Amino acid sequence: MSFSQAISLIPGKTGIYIRAAFYRLVCTDTSDEISVGFLTIFSHADTTIEKGVYIGPQCNIGKCTICADTLLGSAVHILSGKNQHNFDDITTSIQKQGGKFEKIRIGRDCWIGNNATVLADVSDQCVIAAGSVSAKSIPNKGDIVAGNPARVIKNRLAGSVDNEKLFT
Amino acid sequence: MSFSQAISLIPGKTGIYIRAAFYRLVCTDTSDEISVGFLTIFSHADTTIEKGVYIGPQCNIGKCTICADTLLGSAVHILSGKNQHNFDDITTSIQKQGGKFEKIRIGRDCWIGNNATVLADVSDQCVIAAGSVSAKSIPNKGDIVAGNPARVIKNRLAGSVDNEKLFT
Amino acid sequence: MSFSQAISLIPGKTGIYIRAAFYRLVCTDTSDEISVGFLTIFSHADTTIEKGVYIGPQCNIGKCTICADTLLGSAVHILSGKNQHNFDDITTSIQKQGGKFEKIRIGRDCWIGNNATVLADVSDQCVIAAGSVSAKSIPNKGDIVAGNPARVIKNRLAGSVDNEKLFT
Repeated sequence: MSFSQAISLIPGKTGIYIRAAFYRLVCTDTSDEISVGFLTIFSHADTTIEKGVYIGPQCNIGKCTICADTLLGSAVHILSGKNQHNFDDITTSIQKQGGKFEKIRIGRDCWIGNNATVLADVSDQCVIAAGSVSAKSIPNKGDIVAGNPARVIKNRLAGSVDNEKLFT
Repeated sequence: MSFSQAISLIPGKTGIYIRAAFYRLVCTDTSDEISVGFLTIFSHADTTIEKGVYIGPQCNIGKCTICADTLLGSAVHILSGKNQHNFDDITTSIQKQGGKFEKIRIGRDCWIGNNATVLADVSDQCVIAAGSVSAKSIPNKGDIVAGNPARVIKNRLAGSVDNEKLFT
Repeated sequence: MSFSQAISLIPGKTGIYIRAAFYRLVCTDTSDEISVGFLTIFSHADTTIEKGVYIGPQCNIGKCTICADTLLGSAVHILSGKNQHNFDDITTSIQKQGGKFEKIRIGRDCWIGNNATVLADVSDQCVIAAGSVSAKSIPNKGDIVAGNPARVIKNRLAGSVDNEKLFT
């Protein structure tokens, strides 16, 4: 995906148009009604970005599906799962042990805050607070998670949400 | 702020001079005696950077005031508050619910470490450890905070500081 | 190191070749059999990268030695220690108090996950989970650490490792 790197450098709205057109062509089932920010890079062509997704600048997008209308802040990292490198064998270097790139799924209408790191599936309509490290699947729709490791602190379906409580 | 993206790409001292001149012109009450690093982008013109501020490379600066002499490491994220997107309504997509961009205030003579994420006001002369997520206002001058969520671990006005203690 | 910034912008394999050649020339005892990713910048020439090291994109590499075969994900921050800025004196601005840039050592055959921040030495064959903030030396070979602050959760030499356990 070296072309992904080259086009990440195009600033402003021109960059956003060109990246949307490019990712629709090269990525699996990807819409061109998406916004991909400046300096954001993709590492796998087998990545699916659905209609209405907004990805901020400085992100790093692994092998994943990001469902419709989801919103990623700046410098969000979506990894291709957490088994990219095996390290069970202490007598072989990690780089030679191989690993597995999983296509994780980020649900629709989620908000993932700036600088969050996501290593596993996220259900629909979840919120991941800025700076969180979400390493386990979030199985429930509407969960709000925060911290490192990220923990569920509330659910959007459970009633009104007080942002102040998110971080205490 | 697409010009902010374009000039973030200029390497070396040339980039630092050009960015200082540019931000003095386009941002509210901003000094040109500032240093803004490579690949650092601003997202709002209503941002105020006072004299003597140093901002490292790869940062992301939202709507804020950064007071005199403050020092930001690399990849620091200053957000425009934590209410940028409302999500109370589960029947409307988050992108359509609107939100509020607040102008947060980072005090003077602070040090914010690499990869820290700041979502709320910071008092004068505070230190935010690298990698911290500072989501609540830091009301006391000189507080030293660390962790996710960031907690006060010491105060600079309370006597000598042992860096080793910062992270235990 | 403004040339480090300029060449960080070269996309694809061309960038990887040019950066390897460049860092072998300007950095202390650095191999050209290394891979340094797109948008990754170095801040000190007194940095040593040994043979077989892989450094992902969007990283920030301070003064350090990275030993053979070690693997860094994306947006990893290796700092020049944690004493870069003194702040004991409340009557002088932090920028004027000076500090110490230490050359930290990352051992051989380590894996440092995406978005991790490392401020101190890491022993050989360690694993640092994505998003961790590793602020204290990791003295034992093969330790696996996670969190902010990073804590030892397992050791690679102690038997088989279950990735699922890494983040619970």
